[in-house]
Amino acid sequence: MATYPHFGIRNNNFKNVNDDFLYHFGFATKTIDIPKIFGDTKFVCTGGSPTRIKLYAEWFSKECELECSGNLAKSDRFVMYKTGKVLWINHGMGTPSLSIMLVETLKLLYHAKAQDVEFIRTGTSGGIGAEPGTVVVTSDAMNAELNNKYVEHETYLDEELRNELVALAKEKQIPVEVGLTMCADDFYEGQMRLDGFFCDYKMDDKMDLLKQIYEKGVRNIEMVCTCFLAMTFRAGVKAAIVCVALLNRMEGDQVKIDHNVYLEYEERPFRLVTALIRKQLGI
Amino acid sequence: MATYPHFGIRNNNFKNVNDDFLYHFGFATKTIDIPKIFGDTKFVCTGGSPTRIKLYAEWFSKECELECSGNLAKSDRFVMYKTGKVLWINHGMGTPSLSIMLVETLKLLYHAKAQDVEFIRTGTSGGIGAEPGTVVVTSDAMNAELNNKYVEHETYLDEELRNELVALAKEKQIPVEVGLTMCADDFYEGQMRLDGFFCDYKMDDKMDLLKQIYEKGVRNIEMVCTCFLAMTFRAGVKAAIVCVALLNRMEGDQVKIDHNVYLEYEERPFRLVTALIRKQLGI
Repeated sequence: MATYPHFGIRNNNFKNVNDDFLYHFGFATKTIDIPKIFGDTKFVCTGGSPTRIKLYAEWFSKECELECSGNLAKSDRFVMYKTGKVLWINHGMGTPSLSIMLVETLKLLYHAKAQDVEFIRTGTSGGIGAEPGTVVVTSDAMNAELNNKYVEHETYLDEELRNELVALAKEKQIPVEVGLTMCADDFYEGQMRLDGFFCDYKMDDKMDLLKQIYEKGVRNIEMVCTCFLAMTFRAGVKAAIVCVALLNRMEGDQVKIDHNVYLEYEERPFRLVTALIRKQLGI
Repeated sequence: MATYPHFGIRNNNFKNVNDDFLYHFGFATKTIDIPKIFGDTKFVCTGGSPTRIKLYAEWFSKECELECSGNLAKSDRFVMYKTGKVLWINHGMGTPSLSIMLVETLKLLYHAKAQDVEFIRTGTSGGIGAEPGTVVVTSDAMNAELNNKYVEHETYLDEELRNELVALAKEKQIPVEVGLTMCADDFYEGQMRLDGFFCDYKMDDKMDLLKQIYEKGVRNIEMVCTCFLAMTFRAGVKAAIVCVALLNRMEGDQVKIDHNVYLEYEERPFRLVTALIRKQLGI
């Protein structure tokens, strides 16, 4: 079992930097008082959709009776909300977008002198064998070449944090499975969907892939997990991934659930992550 | 010189489909009258930022005295506006996000029975030798392995459309260069920036890369061009890329220009593309 390195910036050039512009957040170290606003951060909660992250921040604020900030991002690339010690930032779709958000968030926490911060990705995903509504707690990430790497960096994730999430899901009666999460570089061909504009393969090819990855232990597919787990490990911040399956890919490709059911499914990762944060922070 | 194939869906499964849900646009073929709303589309103009695409649509509407639709997307993943025969949709950051937008836009145009549509990407980029404010009209795309591919598909771009853009830039006195565009998978390490959270290389390594790609003919770096040119070619729709350089990467990594200068630079790709569209549509 690997152990997380100490959190700290992995860039010697920062010794001589007296101003740093976080371009995709739209503010700089000299623009705002970063230690004052972000220094107490203990959790970074993320997910692809800006609207969902805003909603989660507002729900958390209400549930914990903590003030919710306005959108702290000054660029339109991401949204950012803070509720007490919890920072909510969306990451867009795919690893390139996530990598930008992570690098700037890690620099932000470094400038803020924040300590012992945990990163949790919430999201939606396609289940592999997992039925719609199942919350998949990721045991490790796998890329399209079926290994646990992002570029040349290995993925890693905190076992204790994962076990705590699984135990809490059971306690809260949220349907849960633990399994590998596969990271795809696109939504259609990269996941062998049959409903894209392009489709050079057949139903049998799709089913062969899904069965192969199911047997390896994959329970869901999304588009960012390898980057999320490799970058957080390199930086020395603990991480977990909690995604709800919106469909079972063994049975189809299109998400076809009623809006109310969708909303209830979307709430499940939030409920689980909120339970974890409240327990850890004692709020 | 390759020639574009005829536009048409590359998926035999669509013969039997009577409803199609464009998940990331949030509407289906049965939800709205797609041929009525989108059937007359002749240009799809895209770019990363949702706010900039909205701004471009509004400017175009004003300049051409055409009504600008409200946001036609019913999901928060992308924004979509229509001004006459021009459809404006943002694509987020990186090829995974762009690939989703392109697949769903191509399906949309197929369902709409639109014909002879041209796709133009506008955006911002890091110049390679190109000075800040230069509009780079892309001659071809190059990936991080220095070849013109996205996954296994070759990139291709219409020479006539590109030449028309260059001639119009000169006519409108917009500073222009023609060159290769490099597609990076992230903003920091993938472009050898020295100001990220991680940096395992030195200034000399960065300069060696930039000189190497400059000598190959690269004039700017962004994060989507290979996917854009490979997918549009596969689908049989002509494409062009017009990005302004916000900085010369030979001289730095951070974007440090005054807000007013930024706004003027941001307007240049719009001015050029608008001139092209007005000329082609005779408006």
